[in-house]
Amino acid sequence: MVMSRSPTLRLRDGSEMPQIGMGTWKHYGTKAADAVYAGLQNGYRLVDGACDYGNEKECGDGLQRAIGEGIVERADVWVVSKLWNTFHRKEHVAEAVKRSLADWGVSYFDIYYVHFPISLAYVSPEVHYPPGWYFDGKSEVKHDSVPLRETWEALEELVDAGLIRHLGVSNVCSALLMDLFKYARIKPSVLQIEIHPYNTQARAVEYAQSQGLAVTAYSSFGPLGFRELSSPKALRTPPLFTHPAVISVAQKHDATPAQIILRWATQRDLAVIPKSNTPEMMRENLQSASFNLTEEEMGVISGLDVGLRFNDPADDFAGCYIFS
Amino acid sequence: MVMSRSPTLRLRDGSEMPQIGMGTWKHYGTKAADAVYAGLQNGYRLVDGACDYGNEKECGDGLQRAIGEGIVERADVWVVSKLWNTFHRKEHVAEAVKRSLADWGVSYFDIYYVHFPISLAYVSPEVHYPPGWYFDGKSEVKHDSVPLRETWEALEELVDAGLIRHLGVSNVCSALLMDLFKYARIKPSVLQIEIHPYNTQARAVEYAQSQGLAVTAYSSFGPLGFRELSSPKALRTPPLFTHPAVISVAQKHDATPAQIILRWATQRDLAVIPKSNTPEMMRENLQSASFNLTEEEMGVISGLDVGLRFNDPADDFAGCYIFS
Repeated sequence: MVMSRSPTLRLRDGSEMPQIGMGTWKHYGTKAADAVYAGLQNGYRLVDGACDYGNEKECGDGLQRAIGEGIVERADVWVVSKLWNTFHRKEHVAEAVKRSLADWGVSYFDIYYVHFPISLAYVSPEVHYPPGWYFDGKSEVKHDSVPLRETWEALEELVDAGLIRHLGVSNVCSALLMDLFKYARIKPSVLQIEIHPYNTQARAVEYAQSQGLAVTAYSSFGPLGFRELSSPKALRTPPLFTHPAVISVAQKHDATPAQIILRWATQRDLAVIPKSNTPEMMRENLQSASFNLTEEEMGVISGLDVGLRFNDPADDFAGCYIFS
Repeated sequence: MVMSRSPTLRLRDGSEMPQIGMGTWKHYGTKAADAVYAGLQNGYRLVDGACDYGNEKECGDGLQRAIGEGIVERADVWVVSKLWNTFHRKEHVAEAVKRSLADWGVSYFDIYYVHFPISLAYVSPEVHYPPGWYFDGKSEVKHDSVPLRETWEALEELVDAGLIRHLGVSNVCSALLMDLFKYARIKPSVLQIEIHPYNTQARAVEYAQSQGLAVTAYSSFGPLGFRELSSPKALRTPPLFTHPAVISVAQKHDATPAQIILRWATQRDLAVIPKSNTPEMMRENLQSASFNLTEEEMGVISGLDVGLRFNDPADDFAGCYIFS
């Protein structure tokens, strides 16, 4: 079997980022380690992690196992992490990055994102890690008042220091991104936002790409990832894998629904980071760029857009109005 | 005839802002002067203007005529203006405010808004005023790179200097507003955004009000004001004044559709600034808070929400992605 390789997207500094990476959200314990190891073994070269996923140690174990066995070298893999909300103050940013680096067992991140444009009160890692939306065990979500600029400048220093190769922002709307551009000494290279056929984000993508950012789609399969979390919004939304529009396109290409949805994204020059539970799914997802959808087929999938967002912290947490 | 007076909304410093003001957008020439004069004569005590409306001199004429005839004193009226996009650099903010003050013939503004979170290249008033979306007569919309913070700090200095009583922001999404709060020495007192039954903005209102801002709804009548501009989006949207849901509520209260729509807004503790073309309409709008809608009726009107935005600069101008 010839090993599939992901196509790449060129970042603003000329680096070639793998366009199809592997997501790690909701992989827990040894399953996380095994998934990262299997992903690398099956050809993935970008692993999208985050402090908040609570599995960076295990993901790091999988990476180290693959490096130890000579499957990959560190330099072959894009290791990605994200700054959690409780670490936005300048005095906490480096602490958070170093903790994540230690968990992964690497000396630098290829991409490091601001996970949300929400600053929450600091929670010491000794008290609770990852902090999540936890404050003191009694109340949830205590907001802090850190301007994005303070956080960004602290991250720029870590780029200077060699701990981060590319900066990214996640869950940031165009207006806030536009403001960030105006003061950022080091411009963000990647924007990671929720994008799927039910929420195509045409304008946010158009804006970010026009400014030289690569855009990574998360939750490419729409409600699927949120059904695991029993999200009522996801449970009442028709799954994409059985949607007639997706099925009809899949049949024409002798491809799986997952492949069609991923190809729809990658043909828009989006990067994707699907989570896969089996090596077969991993290979299937990685091979999704081996065919092309027609313009009409792209339109059929884009036509499912209803602006439906599954990951909105304002649904669950007080004061987290980042999408209104 | 007993003169109607607007109810008021309390701002964060305790000031009482008239909840029903008069809009001046698209009043031109002597019509603007006459409208402001008639508005004051008919009981309005807040006049919502802007550099961009291109009529501040004429609005000022109407105000001065009313003051000259003893209809109002300066201190009775809330005079409101807005900073245009081309004046966001700190060295241009005071120039813009002083020009608008001179046009109105007043020494301070009661509220001064940032009109849009968009910074465009400076255009000298000697070359083109108001600048609009004009750059050099050949190309439109040349973006500048002024962070909102720079503009805001310049405005704060003008509050210190006594030229502005209250600061506001317009057309700003919650995420950008949240960021502004974190560095603003003087917090915004008012948010002015597009709100009508087709775009109720529930979360943006909830967030702003939770942070102690008064929220002013513009374009309360939805497509109406944009039909004058031949907006295709407005022309294909059913007018609200003849919408069966609005008509049915209006009949129950023996009120006009305009009054129902305004009352729906003011019962949400929103301020409104309808434009009126006749003294009769002015009085009708000002009297719209003289009855109450039931919770069910409020729900009927809110039920028209489809998130439809008529005023989105990204529809017409390159790079103006403030709502995606």
